[in-house]
Amino acid sequence: MDLVVGIDIGGTKTKIGLVNQEGECISKMFFRTKEHNDLDDYLNKIKKSVDGLIDELDFKPNIIGCGIGAPNASSKNGTIENASNLAWKGTVPILEKLKVKMPMPMRIMNDASAAALGEMLFGNGRHMTDFIVITLGTGFGAGIVANGQLIDGYDGFAGELGHIDMTIGDGRLTGLGVRGGLEAYVSATGLKRTILHMQSKYMVDSRFRDIAYNNLHGEEITIAAEEGDFIAIKAFDYTAKIMALALANFTAFTQPEAFILMGGLTNSGKWIMEPLEKYFNENLLEVYKGKVKLMQSGMSGKTAAICGAAALIWEKQ
Amino acid sequence: MDLVVGIDIGGTKTKIGLVNQEGECISKMFFRTKEHNDLDDYLNKIKKSVDGLIDELDFKPNIIGCGIGAPNASSKNGTIENASNLAWKGTVPILEKLKVKMPMPMRIMNDASAAALGEMLFGNGRHMTDFIVITLGTGFGAGIVANGQLIDGYDGFAGELGHIDMTIGDGRLTGLGVRGGLEAYVSATGLKRTILHMQSKYMVDSRFRDIAYNNLHGEEITIAAEEGDFIAIKAFDYTAKIMALALANFTAFTQPEAFILMGGLTNSGKWIMEPLEKYFNENLLEVYKGKVKLMQSGMSGKTAAICGAAALIWEKQ
Repeated sequence: MDLVVGIDIGGTKTKIGLVNQEGECISKMFFRTKEHNDLDDYLNKIKKSVDGLIDELDFKPNIIGCGIGAPNASSKNGTIENASNLAWKGTVPILEKLKVKMPMPMRIMNDASAAALGEMLFGNGRHMTDFIVITLGTGFGAGIVANGQLIDGYDGFAGELGHIDMTIGDGRLTGLGVRGGLEAYVSATGLKRTILHMQSKYMVDSRFRDIAYNNLHGEEITIAAEEGDFIAIKAFDYTAKIMALALANFTAFTQPEAFILMGGLTNSGKWIMEPLEKYFNENLLEVYKGKVKLMQSGMSGKTAAICGAAALIWEKQ
Repeated sequence: MDLVVGIDIGGTKTKIGLVNQEGECISKMFFRTKEHNDLDDYLNKIKKSVDGLIDELDFKPNIIGCGIGAPNASSKNGTIENASNLAWKGTVPILEKLKVKMPMPMRIMNDASAAALGEMLFGNGRHMTDFIVITLGTGFGAGIVANGQLIDGYDGFAGELGHIDMTIGDGRLTGLGVRGGLEAYVSATGLKRTILHMQSKYMVDSRFRDIAYNNLHGEEITIAAEEGDFIAIKAFDYTAKIMALALANFTAFTQPEAFILMGGLTNSGKWIMEPLEKYFNENLLEVYKGKVKLMQSGMSGKTAAICGAAALIWEKQ
């Protein structure tokens, strides 16, 4: 059976899996990225993990290539450049180095772009030529498909929409120091920051008065909203409002048929989606109204990133 | 000789020309759009004008088609929809109606997208696969090329960047009522509004204290800046600052190799370009720094829009 190795390099976890032509991840393993801060050590761990996954199969697969999704990856250069959430600094020629250890066809791409390719081949993007995937995790990522093709940019850095400034130079700073940057508002981290903001703005009681920022987890905000916590509900509303404005702006760019949302923040369900739908339709220009869908990912949350990475190779078959 | 009819429908003027395969406009005429508010009358005027241009040639051309650039045009529907600067309201099926009068292959597109096609075939975009044309006239338009293709959007309305909100819901209203919309700041009209704003902000003397808004013309602002008028220089600086932020944001979208600027505001030369270059490089994310050029159009200002419209047909040959 033909299989592709899919690798998702995240700030917290590295996820590796074997993916068949239907986009099914038939075997997978995760390890903590930060336990391997030395690049060579990290690449050896990847090689060993891939060998392990192959050995565990009860048949001998034909591995046709390896696709990698990573933050700040340049598909054109085969590098990871200045990734703020990874230990390796500067420009890392990861493709070149990994190919020495695992000689096979190999591609790398920005993680959100890989997710968009995954949706295009295996998910909700299968019947669309124009859509944008939004990943809402620690940060805010975007993968743009237009004219049935992924938009990659001049040297592979298209879709870095988490760092656009929405505020004409005034507002929160992102992790990269961009003032007013979108992901300072719209991401799991942005939601936590907004919980602080709402506590500073309103004097009402809330369960969050007893929880320090570093102890605060996204799931808890959803639970609090379910219980009627005013601060939690306000924070979701504010996050949805800014996200809606951003998506309305993005619509004016490539006019997608749909936005496909994935990542931790989407697990908050109606608390984010209902205000998002409302504000999005309010913000859309007349010419776009009623034409742009907001949908959730068509892929399993746990393996979506692996399958997206594998799509880099399956796309070329 | 094979020729294409290029038509640029503007709020003020309609420009018609005959364009050869090299993108040269060998014959042209202009008339005032608003003198023909009845659509049928307007289309008859176009037909008559095209016949006139052909008759004036000293040879018999082979007309292979007609390309049209217009505000709020949908290439996929062949329509102009809700154009705020044109007399015809609602959805105008202009392609269908003009074809009856002038049976030939015909395409229509948003004027800024047509300008981008023109640059791709005949101008400064000839050797680039990823660039964005910005038109700075009465409004703010954008034509986006990525992967060597024009980005048209799900039903032909991509690139409406003049109406994106840069201010999280606070700021000037555009002609379409979008609060904080980019073209309320960055356009010939936006610059005039900023002349008012700077007079309200500062108490210094200025030639503009004696000129009412409706009597104010863009060229005069350039002349004033040349003469050291504080208000004029401040207004250019402010316009450039917001434009720079917008272009830095757009870079994060498709990562173009260059922005190609055209339209009235670019005639102000260094007064807009020098602060623009400065603020643009300040605003760019690290990963894009030094990689994105700002350039002026490679086409003659007077016929660029006609040649862009004609490129719709030449592109398909």
